[in-house]
Amino acid sequence: MTTTYPGYLRKPHYYETDQMGIIHHSNYIRWFEEARVDVLEHLGLSYHAIENAGIIIPVLAVDCQYKNMIRYGDQVKILVSITQYTGTRLDFSYEIRDIATDQLMTTGASKHCFLSKDSGRLLSLKKTHPAFHQIFVDFSESL
Amino acid sequence: MTTTYPGYLRKPHYYETDQMGIIHHSNYIRWFEEARVDVLEHLGLSYHAIENAGIIIPVLAVDCQYKNMIRYGDQVKILVSITQYTGTRLDFSYEIRDIATDQLMTTGASKHCFLSKDSGRLLSLKKTHPAFHQIFVDFSESL
Amino acid sequence: MTTTYPGYLRKPHYYETDQMGIIHHSNYIRWFEEARVDVLEHLGLSYHAIENAGIIIPVLAVDCQYKNMIRYGDQVKILVSITQYTGTRLDFSYEIRDIATDQLMTTGASKHCFLSKDSGRLLSLKKTHPAFHQIFVDFSESL
Amino acid sequence: MTTTYPGYLRKPHYYETDQMGIIHHSNYIRWFEEARVDVLEHLGLSYHAIENAGIIIPVLAVDCQYKNMIRYGDQVKILVSITQYTGTRLDFSYEIRDIATDQLMTTGASKHCFLSKDSGRLLSLKKTHPAFHQIFVDFSESL
Repeated sequence: MTTTYPGYLRKPHYYETDQMGIIHHSNYIRWFEEARVDVLEHLGLSYHAIENAGIIIPVLAVDCQYKNMIRYGDQVKILVSITQYTGTRLDFSYEIRDIATDQLMTTGASKHCFLSKDSGRLLSLKKTHPAFHQIFVDFSESL
Repeated sequence: MTTTYPGYLRKPHYYETDQMGIIHHSNYIRWFEEARVDVLEHLGLSYHAIENAGIIIPVLAVDCQYKNMIRYGDQVKILVSITQYTGTRLDFSYEIRDIATDQLMTTGASKHCFLSKDSGRLLSLKKTHPAFHQIFVDFSESL
Repeated sequence: MTTTYPGYLRKPHYYETDQMGIIHHSNYIRWFEEARVDVLEHLGLSYHAIENAGIIIPVLAVDCQYKNMIRYGDQVKILVSITQYTGTRLDFSYEIRDIATDQLMTTGASKHCFLSKDSGRLLSLKKTHPAFHQIFVDFSESL
Repeated sequence: MTTTYPGYLRKPHYYETDQMGIIHHSNYIRWFEEARVDVLEHLGLSYHAIENAGIIIPVLAVDCQYKNMIRYGDQVKILVSITQYTGTRLDFSYEIRDIATDQLMTTGASKHCFLSKDSGRLLSLKKTHPAFHQIFVDFSESL
């Protein structure tokens, strides 16, 4: 089931353009977040479910490589993979592809950990939230 | 003293441009907030002082009139006035002027009230925070 | 046909929240733009169609009234009306409603004119682009 | 002279916070751009000077590591280094430090090339703009 994640569809907004006539490079970091939220919802892990479980998933690092310029009027699809899941760490990678041509426009990655909302301490999901843990394991293995 | 508020200086950022080659109109609403924070600090009412006093100052309404396009490379000054202060309501108006030419580029306004951070209820500063109240009265009258 | 415009659906993004735990008020101006683009596409006036016709539709003024706070996790619908169309001027109004409760969250408006992309001069669509003119007239009357 | 670049001072804006109560991670990519523009101006290479010379400096890649959370009310300094300059490629690294404590908050990097504004082709500054080339060489060596 989880293997069928179709990617996150996105139309650039006019306010995301810059005077070079392209989407400003900072916006892709925001699109990665949108796609990450979308894939977690697809897995049954909505923001509220995560929050209600007392978990925060902060961003430790991001990177982004701009291969082709994306313009207003283009439509893109953001594919998300889990590249590492250890129970305490969670890493994603992203590919942005043009929907019309399937051309690879942008690649990127983000690194995360799990914190307790109450204590601010690092969580090991395997111990503290085994149901969530299993979802990440299953999705990682399905890819 | 408070009459000498010199205005808030701002250089547009590249990421604030759009593909029309101008500063995107949504950013002025953010600049108004920056200028509002700056004038409050000038009055001795830093965000932390306001927060520590248990006060939240939400935005009830904004408006903005775009008279001349502002471009990357321009430098502007944002002048802030208090147009109404009643003890329970606080209204600002804004003028954005080009520093080189003094040309009026943009006008705007914002309306605010005071809420208790704890209860979420409307505050009358005159009753609950008389020192803050006096600062607003003095600044309003100095204009 | 044009009467059936269903409104523009929008889920707030996490990066649109602020530390008050609500959607920052500047983002609604961007949502109005998204909804405006969407309704124009619904009318057959995509950004590219407008651009290819040599027309620019700048923003002359915006306003926004914040009636209820919108939070991350809410889903909203933005309804768009044309409140004035004269052939040389185009005014929109907006209502943001919560999808779950139909509660009115935000109202707003924007004012626009038509400029020639080449000359930068004001256009009267009735004269220069009668097919576009008719679309605006029909939509205005359908409301 | 160029060795004395003092860093780019920045106060976070309220609209840059998110509901976790910190500066949203996407904004640091924008701050890096601000700091990059600032150091180029410090070197006599204002955006207009670069643009008038027919040069575009696109972003090929960015990365950012979030070491400590930055909050509204903090003041930070962004230090910029050129880590590679080849005449055709230009790489920067960034350190964001808290001004009060000198604590390292964030690190990052960006990679760039030079394009001709007219032809869109890659430029070798050493050949096409030797004065600009020398400025980059001098600044790189001064670090």
